[in-house]
Order: sequence, then structure tokens, then C-alpha cells
Amino acid sequence: MKLSCLQKNLIQGITQVEKAISRNSTLPILSNILLEIDQGRLKFSATNLELAISSWIGARIEKPGSLTIPARIFSSFVSSLPNKKVDLEIKGASLNIKCENSRASIKGLPAKDFPLIPPVKKECEVNLPAPAFKRALSQVIPAVSISDSRPELSGILFKSDGQELALVATDSYRLAEKKLLLKGANPGFKIIIPQRTALELVKIIGDQEGEIKLIIDENQALFEAKNVEVVTRLIDGNFPDYERIIPEKFSRQAILDLREFISQVKTSAIFSGVIDDVVLSFSKSRALISSESREIGKHEAGVVAKLKGRPLEKMVLNHRYLMDGLNNISSDQLQISFNDAHTPVMLSSYHPVSVKRPKNRDFLYIVMPIKNP
Amino acid sequence: MKLSCLQKNLIQGITQVEKAISRNSTLPILSNILLEIDQGRLKFSATNLELAISSWIGARIEKPGSLTIPARIFSSFVSSLPNKKVDLEIKGASLNIKCENSRASIKGLPAKDFPLIPPVKKECEVNLPAPAFKRALSQVIPAVSISDSRPELSGILFKSDGQELALVATDSYRLAEKKLLLKGANPGFKIIIPQRTALELVKIIGDQEGEIKLIIDENQALFEAKNVEVVTRLIDGNFPDYERIIPEKFSRQAILDLREFISQVKTSAIFSGVIDDVVLSFSKSRALISSESREIGKHEAGVVAKLKGRPLEKMVLNHRYLMDGLNNISSDQLQISFNDAHTPVMLSSYHPVSVKRPKNRDFLYIVMPIKNP
Repeated sequence: MKLSCLQKNLIQGITQVEKAISRNSTLPILSNILLEIDQGRLKFSATNLELAISSWIGARIEKPGSLTIPARIFSSFVSSLPNKKVDLEIKGASLNIKCENSRASIKGLPAKDFPLIPPVKKECEVNLPAPAFKRALSQVIPAVSISDSRPELSGILFKSDGQELALVATDSYRLAEKKLLLKGANPGFKIIIPQRTALELVKIIGDQEGEIKLIIDENQALFEAKNVEVVTRLIDGNFPDYERIIPEKFSRQAILDLREFISQVKTSAIFSGVIDDVVLSFSKSRALISSESREIGKHEAGVVAKLKGRPLEKMVLNHRYLMDGLNNISSDQLQISFNDAHTPVMLSSYHPVSVKRPKNRDFLYIVMPIKNP
Repeated sequence: MKLSCLQKNLIQGITQVEKAISRNSTLPILSNILLEIDQGRLKFSATNLELAISSWIGARIEKPGSLTIPARIFSSFVSSLPNKKVDLEIKGASLNIKCENSRASIKGLPAKDFPLIPPVKKECEVNLPAPAFKRALSQVIPAVSISDSRPELSGILFKSDGQELALVATDSYRLAEKKLLLKGANPGFKIIIPQRTALELVKIIGDQEGEIKLIIDENQALFEAKNVEVVTRLIDGNFPDYERIIPEKFSRQAILDLREFISQVKTSAIFSGVIDDVVLSFSKSRALISSESREIGKHEAGVVAKLKGRPLEKMVLNHRYLMDGLNNISSDQLQISFNDAHTPVMLSSYHPVSVKRPKNRDFLYIVMPIKNP
């Protein structure tokens, strides 16, 4: 392989794929990036065997060839170069790099030893609007379970009925759902994408406009973005029938200023006990947030609220779960919908028309109160 | 105690003193800030028994009193408040805090249990220009020894001959010296200030203009800044006769562009071996920086340099020590002065007149080459 390209393009190609690299892999070649020529472009690939990322950049290619190079060194070195022309050439088992008055030689491992990324069969295909899809992922990711005990909860459910794609995550204490409207006629499907893949997708999509193509087969999914492809294994298992958890109706609804409420929840969190509990109470025109710990002391703050339905004296919530929802509400006014202090509470953007569950495609977040704090 | 003050002032007073608090103190009261009234102002104090910081803010005082309050909770809570009037009142063993619609009560420990900070006798006193003193501390701090084996090297030497104050640090592999001109007639002295104190002083001085008063007695030093005082124990021991380490004359001198050289040293560091070694070689008009590790590969880069004296084929330096010096040179051009590959090398700002050691008050940094890499 012998080629030249711009430093800026080179670092972009590397940055995209190095997201797939695990810091503590036991197999040395998994710390490497595979470089090869693919249809007149330079192709980068990296994988942790669960997730594989490939990216492509334009280059002036003089000679084909392939090699794998340690990602950390390659990335650090290329980052340290100015945005000028970079010459790359494979010499034996090393990659020689030249840029202005700097030259390096990085030792690699043979391309033939790099694990094969199995191709994804085009069994099912759907197009997603890039910015909305990225936002939806970010909104539901915090609710993914961090425990290993139920693998099906360690990822995000992608559930399509052909018209809408619902992204759903839950750790059984809270649940986040965001629906995306799909264009045209689409197949129905139900897959679970690992959280790590979702996190990397958010970074890879970045500021990209346009569409992301999602292709699914039995075991894998492929996300095709501009000059980048992500292949991920799917999580095996049955995602719980989450729609049954969301109450059909709520008898009470409080509307509050989102920023002010967030600020007071954060303050109350300072005083909360070991189970991260804060107490909410609602009167006709006010919500009270309070917390107390035997060692530290106590706090209480009032926030203006408009309540429909009867006042509620005491609802205990985990402030971390509460914040994960609040941080993903995008309206100025927050709507908290509930029936009593013991059944699921819903956070959503404020919808003036009805106290029923909004049937539109907005983000919703369900949190279970703490029953015996 | 009952008083009111502005949130902005309150958080400033807390922030200054909480720098003295250790995260893992075994004595609970050392995690607390002592609040008391001192000559019509609210006084904050904190100590880790080596270092004590006090600060003062203006407040409308209604009733005197004192209490110690956990710094972390107090600071987090006050930070979360808006910049409005805050009411503080001691009730029993708690501090009640009220600000707008938020009210808290923080549990404290009695002021009488707080360790006494012994007063510093005015045996010796000198005034230091705040911005220059802060900059000098930052420049020499990186050379302080991190090993515990020689306590006298774990701090910064303050050596005054009455006209000049030299700040010096060394870990025996490298040495940093910065001299400050003193105003008027001053006493001569020689003390060693712990590194932690120096680090906190840099933060405390911040953007302060004007002067810092340094008062010394046999065991302690007191730094008086605006509304803040720092009392520190002194390190016992004899700082080595460091001036003997600095060569009197240098037979060779290279002048290079500082930014370009820093950039190439950083790049070479990526390829350096386990002992962090990079190789410098000097010809009449060029310096070459190179590094090689058996596992990773190798790198070399040329930098334009103007050499006085004979070329040198190979000098091996630790890139971390080199960078600690380079990062504190303030001129555009760097001067590297040396005699051979085995004796101390000096980094300094470029001085066009002489190859001798500059006799002015500039920063200088000495680094020992690695002899048998």
C-alpha cells in the first residue's frame, strides 16, 4: 500500500473506527485498525467482536495493500501532525508515515489475522432521519439497565410497526420511550441493540444530516451513515411487554417550569439519603421538593405548579432516575402525570389538551416511586 | 450566629478555604469549615493540620456565634442557590440556610472542637508582587520531587538574600529556578514550603493584583492575600546547595522555535520506550528529535536550529522532564545550553548576548541527560 491523503481526512477516518476498540482486549489485534484499499478509497475497520465500525476517506492511491496498526499510536501520531499532505506506505510489517519534516514507522500485524466482520443480509431495511434518530437514542440511553442479570434490558428495543419506530429502554425502575415517524411503507420488526452500540452511534452520527440506513438480519444490524458503517450483534431475548407498564390514564397532572424544577431537584439531591430519595408533594398551586438524611440535615424548596386533580401529600422518587428523565424533556414546561404515590409516574413535555397519555410521537419517561423508603 | 450576605460572597469565602480540606481525613472535623464572626465580618477557616486557610466576607450580622459545617455539603448547597440574599442562622448544632424559596438545615460540629491554627510570630516579613509570585510558583512546582525519600525535596525552596527571592525546586533529575526582585530592604531567609501549599497558593492568588505579604517564624509561614490568609508548616531539612548543580559556563547553545520544538517533542514521546527517552542531536542549522521503541516503532523530526559551538550527535533526555521545562518558558525562542551529552542541560528563554548563564531574574530549568539509556 502506498498513498497520500490530507491529515484532516486521515484523523477523521481513524476517529470514527477507534470507537469500536476496547481498552482491555486480550486479543492484541483487536487494539488495531485494519487499513485497506476499497474501490479507490482508504478503508479503516475496527471491531470488539460485538461491534464493528468501518469508515472510508478519499486518498491518492499509488499501490494497493493492507495492514493492521495499533489504534492508539496511529491516532496519537496522526493527531500530532499539521493538516498537510500525509504519505503512507507499508514496508514489510510496518506502516511508514511522512508529513512535512516528521517521519514515523509504526509496527503492525498482518491484515489476514484481523477478524472477519460477517456481512449483514438485507432481510429488512429502513431509513431513519439522522438528527432525530440521534436525539432519540440519547433520550432513551440513560434508562438502559446497567445490571447483567437480565441481558434483554441491557440494550435498546427498536420496535417498528411499519409506520413508527419506537426506541425503548428500561431497567425496570424507569422506562424511556421515543417514537420516530417512518417514511413510506416499511417492514415491522423488533430487535434489541446493545447500549454500547447506541452510545457509539450517537457519536458517529454527530452533526450528520440526511438519513441513516438500518439493515437487519437474524443476528446483526448494520447502520449505514455517510462514509461510516456500524455492524452490531443483536441482543437475544424477549424485551418485556413495556406498553403494559405505562398507565392508560392519569387522574392527576402537575405542570411546572422545567428549569426551576431541575434546579431544585439537584439541590435536594445534596441532602438525600443512601437510597437517593427525594420527596415530592403537590398542592393546588405549588410543588414541594424535600429531602432529609440523618447525618447531613434537610432541605425543602417550593416551585410554582398548576395541579389538575387532588393534592398529593407525599411521593418518594429516586433523584437520579428523576434527573435522567428531566434532562431529556425538551419543552419549557414539564408535565408530571400520576394516579397516586405508588404507581408509575410519567414525565413528558407539557400538552395542554388532555391528561391522557399523549398519543403523538413525543418522548416519555416513566419512573416508579420508591414504595417503602 | 445570625446574619445575611450575598450568595456570590458566600460561595467565594467557602471556595477559598475548602482548598485546605483533604478528601480522606480520619478526623471528621477536618472535613468541616469553621464559621465565626471576626471584626464585623464572616470568617471561614479550614485546615488539614499542615495547611490552614482563612477567608473573610462582608455580611449583615445580627447575632454572633460559631459552628463548623461539612464543607462538601455546604459548598454544594450554596453553589446551587441563585445569587440572591442568603440568611444564615445557627440553631442548636445545625446551620439553617434560607434563600428565596429554598431552605436547608445542615448538621455541624461544635466550633470548640476545631483544631487551633497557631498564630505565626512576625519574625521576618517580606512583600511579594502577587501576579509575578503566582507565575513563579507555577513555573517551579513541576520540578518538585514526588518521592517521599528526601522530604527536603518535597517542597519549594524560598531563598532570599534581601534583594532577590529565588524559588527553587528539584527532584535531583531536574531543577527549576525563578528569581523575583524584592522592593526595599528585606531580611535574608531560607525556608522550604510544601508543594501542596504552593499549589493552593496559585489557586488562591488567582487574578489578584497588588501584593502578598509573607510572614515567617521558626516553624510556619503565613501568606496574606486580599481577604484570605494561608498558614503552612515549613519543611524541616537542608535543601541541597543547588547552585553548584548549575554549570557556570556552557560551550554550546542552540536556539529554536519553542512552539515547533514542543510539538515535535510531544510527537516523539508517543514512540518513546519505557524510560520515556527521546534523543536530540544538533547540527549547525538543525536539531533532530527522535525516539524508538521495539514494540511500537520509531519517529524522527527535524527542527530549524541555530547552533553555537560544535555539533552534538546524541543527547538522551526524559521527555516528561523536558516538557515540564518547555511548558514554562515564556519567550517565542528557546535556548538550550549544554557542554556535552552527559552533564546538565539548561533550558531558558532566548538571550542574544551571551552563552553564559544569564544573570538576570529569568526562569531557568536544568535537566540531567539519561546516561545509559
